[in-house]
Amino acid sequence: MRNSFDFYNPVSLHVGKGKIAKVASLIPPFSKVLLTYGGGSIKRNGIYDQVKTALKDFEVIEFGGIESNPDYHTLLKAVTICKTEKIDFILAVGGGSIIDGSKFIAAAAKFDKDPWTIIIKGLPIKEALPLGAIMTMPATSSEMNNGGVISRRDRKEKFPFFSLVLFPQFAILDPTVVYSIPKKQIGNGIVDCFVHVVEQYITSTDNYKITDRFAEGELKNLIDLAPALMGKDIPDYEVCADYILTATLGLNGWIGMGAVQDWAAHKIGHELTALEGLDHAETLAIIYPGVMHVMKEEKQEKLLQYAENVWHITKGTDEEKIEKGIHLTEQFFIQVGKKVHLSDYNLGQTVIDIIVNRFEARGSVLGENGIVTPKHVRKILENRL
Amino acid sequence: MRNSFDFYNPVSLHVGKGKIAKVASLIPPFSKVLLTYGGGSIKRNGIYDQVKTALKDFEVIEFGGIESNPDYHTLLKAVTICKTEKIDFILAVGGGSIIDGSKFIAAAAKFDKDPWTIIIKGLPIKEALPLGAIMTMPATSSEMNNGGVISRRDRKEKFPFFSLVLFPQFAILDPTVVYSIPKKQIGNGIVDCFVHVVEQYITSTDNYKITDRFAEGELKNLIDLAPALMGKDIPDYEVCADYILTATLGLNGWIGMGAVQDWAAHKIGHELTALEGLDHAETLAIIYPGVMHVMKEEKQEKLLQYAENVWHITKGTDEEKIEKGIHLTEQFFIQVGKKVHLSDYNLGQTVIDIIVNRFEARGSVLGENGIVTPKHVRKILENRL
Repeated sequence: MRNSFDFYNPVSLHVGKGKIAKVASLIPPFSKVLLTYGGGSIKRNGIYDQVKTALKDFEVIEFGGIESNPDYHTLLKAVTICKTEKIDFILAVGGGSIIDGSKFIAAAAKFDKDPWTIIIKGLPIKEALPLGAIMTMPATSSEMNNGGVISRRDRKEKFPFFSLVLFPQFAILDPTVVYSIPKKQIGNGIVDCFVHVVEQYITSTDNYKITDRFAEGELKNLIDLAPALMGKDIPDYEVCADYILTATLGLNGWIGMGAVQDWAAHKIGHELTALEGLDHAETLAIIYPGVMHVMKEEKQEKLLQYAENVWHITKGTDEEKIEKGIHLTEQFFIQVGKKVHLSDYNLGQTVIDIIVNRFEARGSVLGENGIVTPKHVRKILENRL
Repeated sequence: MRNSFDFYNPVSLHVGKGKIAKVASLIPPFSKVLLTYGGGSIKRNGIYDQVKTALKDFEVIEFGGIESNPDYHTLLKAVTICKTEKIDFILAVGGGSIIDGSKFIAAAAKFDKDPWTIIIKGLPIKEALPLGAIMTMPATSSEMNNGGVISRRDRKEKFPFFSLVLFPQFAILDPTVVYSIPKKQIGNGIVDCFVHVVEQYITSTDNYKITDRFAEGELKNLIDLAPALMGKDIPDYEVCADYILTATLGLNGWIGMGAVQDWAAHKIGHELTALEGLDHAETLAIIYPGVMHVMKEEKQEKLLQYAENVWHITKGTDEEKIEKGIHLTEQFFIQVGKKVHLSDYNLGQTVIDIIVNRFEARGSVLGENGIVTPKHVRKILENRL
């Protein structure tokens, strides 16, 4: 049965070479702007200069140094600046971590109580500073959705949050930013986007046929674009443009409309990042193939559809097609530079026990319709030893 | 080269059985509502009663009788009501004609000068009454876009209009509305949506790969869903749900992002409707195959991609694949009950001459990048004799 659903996404999207110069026209005049960014790559690749030039008529306070898997305590410093400096608008320049972190800053700046309660108690976020995004690292769609994930290293925890008030007002996508992204990060972005899509797609035949078709299109594009993106040469503008738009549409709500969704690999992966510091995409490249193997029976029909429609596998029994689809997925992650086993990072039974215990203690069930119990989590992780 | 583009679509979408009851929560409290609808089918199928029940706490003035290809003079009567009754909100209940017409009412109600100048001079529409849509006839996406088409029978003219202020605030899609739609209208809707998609897709290889994939998904769905929709039995809820969502996403801007677009068949078809009264979809079923035949060289690469990716044609030379793709398109239109030649409507050289003269007099060039001249229009129409 197709799910009933409500959908809303008011983010204005501005795509193309040179669009960063337009940012001044998208921020309300006379705003006091907090410019948030990461470790400084935007200073090396020229994006910082483009942004500063575009914002020359605004009062701008900078907050750099937001790390990958943005840390709660780092973000609190920016929250203080928002309050003391009476910031009107946050402009996030970076990848998913910067934009996610900036969403948290935007919410916490308008929140009177302990901001960690937003995360841990899932308190509704009813107000936030307005936010815009210049996306420099295609991967997460954070620039065009209303969620984020932040980490708390002092507790080795990583959790998501959402609110209708956290959609960026605008997202600027200049494909030329892709030219200078290191290949490791490109590979991370491809895996991240790929797994975002399958989390929404390889679940139930109850999903709408049109979101299935869109999801298959996303996956086929990532597969088609990967060789040029990962090759030695700087990719063509067309490849970068196709990639940046594909990534933004992977988790902006379009392919998730009414969809039965999984997200088990993400939730397990967040634990692995929080405990061991692996990149988000590195955890997904390990864990998602495990989900496919262990939940094969429950996901049978969609795994077959995936094998046939995404990998164009036409020969063999249904079981053989499914196996080949899983194998090609793992090979694809390897092709874009990822390792696919825990042992590749010298991880083993110890971390598995900690993660399973955490899910047991929380009473968590994961996956579509709660089909992934802590016992399945153990099997999934042991599949990846 | 991928086009730079800006995209924005703030329509909130509410999809599922029973969603019509939600309409009261989507209209600002204490609004005085103009309820617009068509010839009365909503009174026979129960939708009118559902809407009236949902709106019981609002002051509602009704304006029924909006015709297919909504007429300027009909709509002006509603504009007068909006002004004299101080209407706050327009709720359109119907198909594309009702919603298009209601958009014109919304714009003209806030326009001081002669409203026809909006259409004929393309004056910018800077203000409009807020509008919501309950969609009862999947086809045009008018419920989720910012354009419309209206007719002026006294001049035998039909023209489009657009504005950023004409997005409905919300669109409600209840799949069960499809149960009672006559097969002729279902066939019209399928052809209408199909041609909307190819107008955005069968043009240039400059288009983004992801919008190409989404467009191919739309077309494949329409082809897959047509037998159940057109069959003797009332289609399953799943089929109706897949169809209603596919239709809404066909022209809501998603697959048109950055796309080189055609629209020659629509512009020629509008003339045929204005002059001879054919349904919009009837004109498209005749003319679009003519566009494919006559513009075959210019559209060669995309026609080949279409044949391979939509119709899964794998055998033959490129030329043979393209021919087969065109043939299957025409057969598909016939399968859903449409005639595909002018002579099927006893039309011939006379109307061709009038249409070509109109485009010559206006100095119009049509199609992607203006490649369709009045001479091509003649060839396209003569191909359909």
